[in-house]
Amino acid sequence: VANEEFSLIHSWTKKAINQQGDGLSVGIGDDAAVFSISSGMELVACTDAMIETVHFLRETMAPEDVGYKSLISNFSDIAAMGGVPRFVLVTIGVPPTWSAEECQQIYEGMYEACALYGVRIIGGDTVATPDALHLSVTALGEVERGQALLRSSAKPGHLVFVTGRLGGSAAGLHALLEARDQGGSVQQRWHELLTRHRRPLAQVAAARLLIKYGQGGALNDVSDGLASELWEIAEASNVRVVVDQSLLPVEPDAVAYAESVAKDPLEWVLFGGEEYQLVGTVAPTVAPTLAQAFQQQGLAATFIGEVEQGEPGVYLKERQGLQKALAKAGYNHFRAVD
Amino acid sequence: VANEEFSLIHSWTKKAINQQGDGLSVGIGDDAAVFSISSGMELVACTDAMIETVHFLRETMAPEDVGYKSLISNFSDIAAMGGVPRFVLVTIGVPPTWSAEECQQIYEGMYEACALYGVRIIGGDTVATPDALHLSVTALGEVERGQALLRSSAKPGHLVFVTGRLGGSAAGLHALLEARDQGGSVQQRWHELLTRHRRPLAQVAAARLLIKYGQGGALNDVSDGLASELWEIAEASNVRVVVDQSLLPVEPDAVAYAESVAKDPLEWVLFGGEEYQLVGTVAPTVAPTLAQAFQQQGLAATFIGEVEQGEPGVYLKERQGLQKALAKAGYNHFRAVD
Repeated sequence: VANEEFSLIHSWTKKAINQQGDGLSVGIGDDAAVFSISSGMELVACTDAMIETVHFLRETMAPEDVGYKSLISNFSDIAAMGGVPRFVLVTIGVPPTWSAEECQQIYEGMYEACALYGVRIIGGDTVATPDALHLSVTALGEVERGQALLRSSAKPGHLVFVTGRLGGSAAGLHALLEARDQGGSVQQRWHELLTRHRRPLAQVAAARLLIKYGQGGALNDVSDGLASELWEIAEASNVRVVVDQSLLPVEPDAVAYAESVAKDPLEWVLFGGEEYQLVGTVAPTVAPTLAQAFQQQGLAATFIGEVEQGEPGVYLKERQGLQKALAKAGYNHFRAVD
Repeated sequence: VANEEFSLIHSWTKKAINQQGDGLSVGIGDDAAVFSISSGMELVACTDAMIETVHFLRETMAPEDVGYKSLISNFSDIAAMGGVPRFVLVTIGVPPTWSAEECQQIYEGMYEACALYGVRIIGGDTVATPDALHLSVTALGEVERGQALLRSSAKPGHLVFVTGRLGGSAAGLHALLEARDQGGSVQQRWHELLTRHRRPLAQVAAARLLIKYGQGGALNDVSDGLASELWEIAEASNVRVVVDQSLLPVEPDAVAYAESVAKDPLEWVLFGGEEYQLVGTVAPTVAPTLAQAFQQQGLAATFIGEVEQGEPGVYLKERQGLQKALAKAGYNHFRAVD
């Protein structure tokens, strides 16, 4: 990006819907944004960065996808507390290798994510960087006072659940990297997997059902792989988590794609990431109500195991009935897949 | 930073004071932080990034200074709304050229800034970057509902004021770059100027006096140079701002240093930046009360000009009584000085 293009980028960042209302008193255009949240709620705040070559490659993500996903990963962290995302602040670091037009496309992807979740961009910073594109996003949301769903709330006897299906994002990334290495493009039949990787959804509606019907319990989002997220719950709650391999909801396309490349999809399910599904625990007494509520809203939730007393750890009950200890190993982006 | 050092850096970021209290329900260690603010207050949120080679050089700032200043620039934006900073989220992007020890020093500088202002680090992200060190900070604070001090609140007849003294940071940077270019070090007698550049203060106490006694008016912080900040007020308020050159509070050391290198300190006062002083406007009726309140708290505020009706613009009344239009040109970091 040339110097004169910087003002252009600045102007897009200011395109953010800036009227007052919804608790927003001051949006973009002053030293800081000013807003209030709904009464009876607490603030939820998180930050998550995406760096070119570390978290994404230009060959595997369009600029719009990068912008979109940078917000979704943050909305997902808000959802993982049971909260609703409301506002974001975005810092973009632009190297000379990205054009002003591509930066505009990044923002278009962000506005798509904002529109989907009713979120507004209320601040940010536009800076030059010497090399790679950087996006650093802070999301602000709200949750009922005292009711945030913590990693430390899992209790022996709780059931373990996960929303949606797993393995799709990692399978999609695998397909993209294979295509890149072979100089081709991904076959049409695997395009849904690419969408899983490039356009994940944040499970805000599911989070809200958990607040409404879950009566507490632990919650985490699957950003770094199921095993890693369950380990966080196990350690924070000081419990042992046992999941049943036969119950894991695997993305059917990921299974089919894995077969076509002679891979085991279980690796993607356990150690892939960026699914942004929610994984957590609830008391067995609330499980039927919760299952019904999910079903009524057309949301998928699968009970995959149990919480037990014992040393913190995560175990996979294999089809033969044996328990295998799962490593903490999470998603290392371009290293984890293959 | 090597891979195995990353967990070390992660551990420092988690050193952040994490007990509950002061409205903080959940600090670092879950998907997001959860907190509430004082009753009758609104949230104030801003974000500001510091990138190696763009905003600082390793030759001119120690790692502690970089960490310290990355928070101060954000506290200053909160102060520029009249608010009090409460919490920060910090994203650090670490390239291979920075050691784990240096990263720890960055955090030590941040904790110093936090201790000075009673602020807590409640979240963040630690990522690898291919080249330059990146810090992206989001600050969250609070201000009395409906009372945030906006750039758009200047009115014809208002007096223009600035806190503290100007020109010190730019003079200090000039001295540092001169020393670097000549392979020497900065003379002891200019060390106060280095402190102005490396360890600026955010004017939170002054901001709070403006909320208490200012009865509205415009406010901005001098991050990009006085002329640029006044232009933002002039444009947002649709007014003409005239400042009197003879009234500008110039840092005495900057004047002396400028003489020693045959420079005009006025350039640093008008177009230097990173002073983090506050500049704003108030009705003349409240000026005496405000001046007294500042004096009682040992804070400096100088009235430097007036707001007039007319096309948005910023003018400098020179010693001869002539008015010179000031360019918007702000601080371009390593380009503006010399």
